[in-house]
Amino acid sequence: MQKVIEAIKRHKRFLVTAHVNPEGDSLCSQLAMKEMLGMMGKTAVIVNHDRVPEHYKFLPKADEISTDLKKKVEFDAVLILDCPTLKRIGGVKDLIPKGKPIINIDHHISSEKFGDVNWVDPNASSTGEMVYRLFKEMEIPLTREVALCLYIAILTDTGNFNYDNTSRMTHDIAGELLGYGLDPAMVSESVYERRTMEDIRFLGLVLSTLKLNRAGDVAYLEMTREMVKETGADIAKSEGFINYARSIGGVKIAIVFKEDMKDPNKINISFRSKGDVDVNGIAAYFGGGGHTKASGCTLTGSLAEVEQRVLSKVEEIRARH
Amino acid sequence: MQKVIEAIKRHKRFLVTAHVNPEGDSLCSQLAMKEMLGMMGKTAVIVNHDRVPEHYKFLPKADEISTDLKKKVEFDAVLILDCPTLKRIGGVKDLIPKGKPIINIDHHISSEKFGDVNWVDPNASSTGEMVYRLFKEMEIPLTREVALCLYIAILTDTGNFNYDNTSRMTHDIAGELLGYGLDPAMVSESVYERRTMEDIRFLGLVLSTLKLNRAGDVAYLEMTREMVKETGADIAKSEGFINYARSIGGVKIAIVFKEDMKDPNKINISFRSKGDVDVNGIAAYFGGGGHTKASGCTLTGSLAEVEQRVLSKVEEIRARH
Repeated sequence: MQKVIEAIKRHKRFLVTAHVNPEGDSLCSQLAMKEMLGMMGKTAVIVNHDRVPEHYKFLPKADEISTDLKKKVEFDAVLILDCPTLKRIGGVKDLIPKGKPIINIDHHISSEKFGDVNWVDPNASSTGEMVYRLFKEMEIPLTREVALCLYIAILTDTGNFNYDNTSRMTHDIAGELLGYGLDPAMVSESVYERRTMEDIRFLGLVLSTLKLNRAGDVAYLEMTREMVKETGADIAKSEGFINYARSIGGVKIAIVFKEDMKDPNKINISFRSKGDVDVNGIAAYFGGGGHTKASGCTLTGSLAEVEQRVLSKVEEIRARH
Repeated sequence: MQKVIEAIKRHKRFLVTAHVNPEGDSLCSQLAMKEMLGMMGKTAVIVNHDRVPEHYKFLPKADEISTDLKKKVEFDAVLILDCPTLKRIGGVKDLIPKGKPIINIDHHISSEKFGDVNWVDPNASSTGEMVYRLFKEMEIPLTREVALCLYIAILTDTGNFNYDNTSRMTHDIAGELLGYGLDPAMVSESVYERRTMEDIRFLGLVLSTLKLNRAGDVAYLEMTREMVKETGADIAKSEGFINYARSIGGVKIAIVFKEDMKDPNKINISFRSKGDVDVNGIAAYFGGGGHTKASGCTLTGSLAEVEQRVLSKVEEIRARH
């Protein structure tokens, strides 16, 4: 942490980025970081590979997140947040000339520590929690907007304080952040309750694909391009669907097989686990990564082929336990 | 609070109770209170009007909650928790002879303060939070079991820290309670009813039927006998499905059309509203009833016929507004 602080203090102009397919923690930790840098008299430009999902556009200054991958940005250093590998920043990589110092702040256990300076804390609930600690350590005052961002980062990455990354410190921080005039019910409604008819019909189609393995401890769902086309749903809002599979009694591993919306030969796979099952290992076997309880990878092939490959590997791993 | 502490200290043997249809906060605050009294060298017997729901049977010493309304209990005082009116304790009332002192601890704003001593704090997230404060005030040490009960009381009464009764203090307490060796993921898994594959597939089929009226303010879902047969789902667990329709942005009236599981000619209809729309009037027009925000009726005919009748009536009422 101290090395990260020194590195931040040393530079003046920053490019800030995070992983592709942004969600609550990556967006909010970037926005809070940009505010912090501003308060320190520095400049920061946020560039992301993907656009801000519709339901996160209400975040303060979300419209300042650029997705122009050819943007002319002058910067002395890069701050990469919530991203376990350099590859996962997507096309933003092309904006970074060789030799530019990279500062990496992350809570993923699978972090490759690809930065010149790395602060990786797998015990943090979220990257937002780590950014909060930076504010405290440097004694930079929080604003209501920053508190909102940090609270949402924690809220979404802990599944409403339910996942086991929720610690005493997580609650202490969340409580303090609420003190900046946040209404937890309003925040929750903004983040979770902006459904459209399209999204719900899409959820319906996805849930109808639910299958269980024979032992009843692996549940999986499918999302196809056809379903997205048929319903007109916003695929970015499907982040939480996997929890329906995970919530089934007896299920230890939940999987979503999602056809890539751009490349018809790619299948994006998400894993979630319950109890002591480590799904990071499974994702890593297929060239992906994440946390022990939440991970992902991308494979080439048809949905049926990829499902078969992944499910037989999962059975193999289960058999060994 | 001080008067409640004095009253507790004054007596030796307690009858502890709470409201009918027990849920997380009422059960857990009673169990924690019983532990507290035990640690103070007093005796306590918990008697409730209704049995502990299946999914709360894992609570420590839940089997010591009696529902024997003719139980011979010797007690000097009654502790009534989480209960706004005396009537709401149900049949337990018959166990209380006239003149027995009643101590009332509650966080409901609608409390009638029916006790001889009342401590009512509508700012507390839960009665569990108030019991926590009693432990602290009297400097009685918490055990892991007590911490578990108090944590669940807070968790369930704040809707996972999402409702606007969640304050900084709520988070501070939850964080401290986790410190007694609680695993938030395990607790959450234990508390929230476990879904089955059948229920989720049924939810999927139902959500796929979602339709909106032209104006986009009426959303409706269908449940058919065929869907129940196909999935093998437990229809009793479909109570909350209507909230998916209600949660859509812009929707003011949500409707579920459910084929009666016994009578093939009957359609059961549920209405829910958002904002100032009164769905009691609509249900009443069709011979049903309920509240302004939640009502229902039963009509005879095919699903298509009944839908058409109800939806045109709803449009008529909308047009008048």
